[in-house]
Amino acid sequence: MIIDLRSDTVTRPTKAMLEAMFAAEVGDDVFQDDPTVNALEAKSAALFGYESALYCPSGTMTNQIAIKVHTTPGDEVICDALSHIYLYEGGGMMSNSLVSATLLTGDYGRINAEQVRDSIKADDIHAPISRLVSLENTVNKGGGCYYDLAEIQQIKGVCEAHGLSLHLDGARLFNALVETGERPDQYGQVFDSISICLSKGLGAPVGSLLLGTKDFIKKARRVRKRFGGGWRQAGYLAAAGIYALDHHVDRLKEDHQRAKTIEGIVRRVPEVIDVLPVYTNIVIFQLAEGLLATDYVQKLNEKGIRCAPFGKDKVRMVTHLDFNDDHLTELEKRLV
Amino acid sequence: MIIDLRSDTVTRPTKAMLEAMFAAEVGDDVFQDDPTVNALEAKSAALFGYESALYCPSGTMTNQIAIKVHTTPGDEVICDALSHIYLYEGGGMMSNSLVSATLLTGDYGRINAEQVRDSIKADDIHAPISRLVSLENTVNKGGGCYYDLAEIQQIKGVCEAHGLSLHLDGARLFNALVETGERPDQYGQVFDSISICLSKGLGAPVGSLLLGTKDFIKKARRVRKRFGGGWRQAGYLAAAGIYALDHHVDRLKEDHQRAKTIEGIVRRVPEVIDVLPVYTNIVIFQLAEGLLATDYVQKLNEKGIRCAPFGKDKVRMVTHLDFNDDHLTELEKRLV
Amino acid sequence: MIIDLRSDTVTRPTKAMLEAMFAAEVGDDVFQDDPTVNALEAKSAALFGYESALYCPSGTMTNQIAIKVHTTPGDEVICDALSHIYLYEGGGMMSNSLVSATLLTGDYGRINAEQVRDSIKADDIHAPISRLVSLENTVNKGGGCYYDLAEIQQIKGVCEAHGLSLHLDGARLFNALVETGERPDQYGQVFDSISICLSKGLGAPVGSLLLGTKDFIKKARRVRKRFGGGWRQAGYLAAAGIYALDHHVDRLKEDHQRAKTIEGIVRRVPEVIDVLPVYTNIVIFQLAEGLLATDYVQKLNEKGIRCAPFGKDKVRMVTHLDFNDDHLTELEKRLV
Amino acid sequence: MIIDLRSDTVTRPTKAMLEAMFAAEVGDDVFQDDPTVNALEAKSAALFGYESALYCPSGTMTNQIAIKVHTTPGDEVICDALSHIYLYEGGGMMSNSLVSATLLTGDYGRINAEQVRDSIKADDIHAPISRLVSLENTVNKGGGCYYDLAEIQQIKGVCEAHGLSLHLDGARLFNALVETGERPDQYGQVFDSISICLSKGLGAPVGSLLLGTKDFIKKARRVRKRFGGGWRQAGYLAAAGIYALDHHVDRLKEDHQRAKTIEGIVRRVPEVIDVLPVYTNIVIFQLAEGLLATDYVQKLNEKGIRCAPFGKDKVRMVTHLDFNDDHLTELEKRLV
Repeated sequence: MIIDLRSDTVTRPTKAMLEAMFAAEVGDDVFQDDPTVNALEAKSAALFGYESALYCPSGTMTNQIAIKVHTTPGDEVICDALSHIYLYEGGGMMSNSLVSATLLTGDYGRINAEQVRDSIKADDIHAPISRLVSLENTVNKGGGCYYDLAEIQQIKGVCEAHGLSLHLDGARLFNALVETGERPDQYGQVFDSISICLSKGLGAPVGSLLLGTKDFIKKARRVRKRFGGGWRQAGYLAAAGIYALDHHVDRLKEDHQRAKTIEGIVRRVPEVIDVLPVYTNIVIFQLAEGLLATDYVQKLNEKGIRCAPFGKDKVRMVTHLDFNDDHLTELEKRLV
Repeated sequence: MIIDLRSDTVTRPTKAMLEAMFAAEVGDDVFQDDPTVNALEAKSAALFGYESALYCPSGTMTNQIAIKVHTTPGDEVICDALSHIYLYEGGGMMSNSLVSATLLTGDYGRINAEQVRDSIKADDIHAPISRLVSLENTVNKGGGCYYDLAEIQQIKGVCEAHGLSLHLDGARLFNALVETGERPDQYGQVFDSISICLSKGLGAPVGSLLLGTKDFIKKARRVRKRFGGGWRQAGYLAAAGIYALDHHVDRLKEDHQRAKTIEGIVRRVPEVIDVLPVYTNIVIFQLAEGLLATDYVQKLNEKGIRCAPFGKDKVRMVTHLDFNDDHLTELEKRLV
Repeated sequence: MIIDLRSDTVTRPTKAMLEAMFAAEVGDDVFQDDPTVNALEAKSAALFGYESALYCPSGTMTNQIAIKVHTTPGDEVICDALSHIYLYEGGGMMSNSLVSATLLTGDYGRINAEQVRDSIKADDIHAPISRLVSLENTVNKGGGCYYDLAEIQQIKGVCEAHGLSLHLDGARLFNALVETGERPDQYGQVFDSISICLSKGLGAPVGSLLLGTKDFIKKARRVRKRFGGGWRQAGYLAAAGIYALDHHVDRLKEDHQRAKTIEGIVRRVPEVIDVLPVYTNIVIFQLAEGLLATDYVQKLNEKGIRCAPFGKDKVRMVTHLDFNDDHLTELEKRLV
Repeated sequence: MIIDLRSDTVTRPTKAMLEAMFAAEVGDDVFQDDPTVNALEAKSAALFGYESALYCPSGTMTNQIAIKVHTTPGDEVICDALSHIYLYEGGGMMSNSLVSATLLTGDYGRINAEQVRDSIKADDIHAPISRLVSLENTVNKGGGCYYDLAEIQQIKGVCEAHGLSLHLDGARLFNALVETGERPDQYGQVFDSISICLSKGLGAPVGSLLLGTKDFIKKARRVRKRFGGGWRQAGYLAAAGIYALDHHVDRLKEDHQRAKTIEGIVRRVPEVIDVLPVYTNIVIFQLAEGLLATDYVQKLNEKGIRCAPFGKDKVRMVTHLDFNDDHLTELEKRLV
């Protein structure tokens, strides 16, 4: 038995999801003719209270498109130094949108309104133009922690006062929502655009959605085409997304519970000296001095446990739909 | 009955293809763990005699990635003024790769070696640096005509003599191959990279492949990630691609035969004053003076015939897997 | 005696211009503290009826800045295929602004309103967004010919109807004005921005001006900084520009007269089979079949005549402030 | 008497420098025909032991060109978070070169070899490619401090081991050299490219030089053209640069001595709670809590003292050629 905790992206569709996919009615989405894609876009937009949505092959694409539509070359995006958009999208923010990143050091990746206010540039030709604030919720690199909605509303206030847009990389937003009990539309009210991912905890094989106004999504559709994200009969995948939204949101709590259990297990591992607080489905732990994450990950791999090095001396484990209690029991056996 | 001749991208999978899709074994392709994607990439690379391949959501993406890997900002791409990469990829060549397009006027979109040689820039800081020649075969905007392989070899000679790379937008390359009887690997020998599309005549729902050396594809994988083309369990779609390569190549001849028949029908339509020579599955006809393509397409649409305006006074019809003899009979009835 | 007809950029300041430079009061222009730069910007803006101006190291910079301010990546600039911005700015339009060039074939580089109207793209994600029309007057590659102002006004009408901006590369605009008798402010009324050059026929050593609204120039100043065009005590050069505007405009007619004389001379040269109509200070002639421009230019160089190859079999001679009647007499002797 | 300490860029040429300028022989530098520009380029290249040099309108341009030549879009530049290239070039690094900045926190802006080694990215498509390390010496934002050459050599070792290039923003390198007694060619040996500025402490009105191999400068010349930095008879300004290199290097020590004196004065100012260590010609001091730099600078301005806000609560004063002992005496009077 391989225990795969590298990412919540490794899941395979359940039988029921696969049947939904199989039964999908499809069409050419470049012509906006795919009824299942259209249904998924309409459904997700409605869920968050947006006018429109765009279904894309990945969360990197939805983020990169959002940044491109919100900004102009020479602008600046304000975000946490731990942000996925800065660290894990291949330098795409800079190379796709020609913008600067102003990096703040938040609380495990969560920046606050005062930090944002202080970082906004004065009108000076030496500096880029502050244009966009981008938050991530939950924060991958911050151990899956999530924002307080009230803080986000404060940040929104700062953005409005200074004419900045506010984007959410909500790749794992549903993980936050099931913990806080907040509703998607509460997030829709505060962000100019949101990216949500269907192929992480929700368990769909492929795809993310970008949400925004009708005009924003119209521009986004152009950028998607230019990146080559205009796909044809994508409805087979979209059907999985619809199924995921209908059936896989609430069960994220199980992943969180198992992550909590892993936290306890990991604390007993001799090579581990610290574990980040576990909020949702991500466990990040720090290795003892002198140990390298790549070596330790390799060692676990030999025991049939897959996880990801996360910096020089940190390791990440992520729980998901395909990680069940049997895996958990087995993990404990092999790990401690 | 709707007769949809807008594009060969509108096809839906056959029952057999659909079964192949849902029998697919999948994994996370970002980790290169999807066995079906890996099999499709290996199969297509071998077919054309390349080391490696990359499966992407669209032909626009494979073209845009190829241009980006072959060039550096400030370089120039030499291509026909009718090229898809210049006309129909949202200005992506310029906005993704920051290159100039030097546009030649070929024979229905087919440029020749002498034109290429004459257009290569001298070493002068006023001009961009000539770096890449890109051909399209068959030529969409040129009515589906195809190149003489000997001419391509001449162009290759010019490229080699001047240190230029040579890329093929082979979105409809198989349409050419079934007509000429040439083999894919003959094309692999002459191009530094080829993009082939599975979701046009071959009838797969989604996807294109970029083919090249191992090093080229490694770089391409990075660019794909940056564009957001890194997808997860794409194997369901890749399975359709494998099926298409196995079962849908030879039948392209039927599409060509039906296109020939349409040519004859269209010549009898009073509004039509000219038809481009029909070589493969594309029929482009010119409307009589004063008629607008958008109006005429709308008029046909009301008769249940869908086709595409192709410039101010030209209209395009494309035959494909879902257009059969019944449709053809019906088309003739409604059109003439 | 070297006869240098390579370009009107080769002139050296007259004694009087040099004295004006010497006497200039200067300051740090990045802080907008250079009184002579400020005076030049104010003077040129007023002359053309604009609110504001920006003094830059070259006409390539003023054009590139203008394009960057008017457009967004993925947009399209409509211009003649002979345009300097497309041919001679190192591919900068594409690599600085990430825009497409839609190239029209005008009358010796002069496009008309109908061509512009026909080239504006429909709202379609496959195409770039038409955003800017750029004219050149006089047209360098068109043999120094100039536009009819009425035609420009027609083009302006098309731009307004479709929400496009209109830019003028007026590197040699004064050469047109002295011929037509039109006033600078008549051009200021019709263009959203104009670039004029002081170091061509006007004889200043360095510098061009970009003219536009206050808001446009504010944005332009940012782009100039980003390109590295923010210079410090540029007033010494600006003083030459002021002198040039005061003293060197009317005398352009002498250059035109001498160019006309050269036309006559060149027609008698056996190697020359054709000469473009001479309108201002540029003479472009075509060599007999089989002759290469680079060879012929080299041959003239050995006779002490410098001129520029202009394409494969064309040669350009440009008259200017440092080319006088003695040079003309000597040219005739050596040439025929 | 206005005491201008905003920057060492505000100086005006001395009488002797002005005479050198107007005695200059000039030509068209775009054709590489300006003998004075050529002499300046040759002189500076030789001084640092490089093959070649390029004279540009600003240090921002020389830095931006260097970054563009060393990198490819999607690459990463490793530098201190206080770097001029990141903070004060209008976001140009990102918008001109499409690269990421990986920001290290050094010792007043001076990073070390270990930091560089630790920041180099593994070969992973999620991350940009580490390609260039850029140092600044002296560090403007670090209060004019300078590097230990031995540390730079360590950094060079890391760069070589990982195939990275090493660039120096040496806008104020001569300020470091006169303090350490090191020779320019010792820096030439360790950097792949150096940018030096003539219009700061050296007192020339305009201009910076980019130094490197012949091949590097050839590529740089192309990029300069594309940015619009190709100027014509720039020899008048270049003559000032030659004069500055011959006569204004050693006297930088006087600026440093006066900066030291200012440090002492500033420490006695009630509003000031801290002063950064003064190494060369820059004095940065921190205001007491609650005071804003912009307010305090305005207050000094009313006393005829000009200086620059440098962050929210810091102020910068820079000594230079036009700031003499009389100014110093007067400054003390007005300040304390």
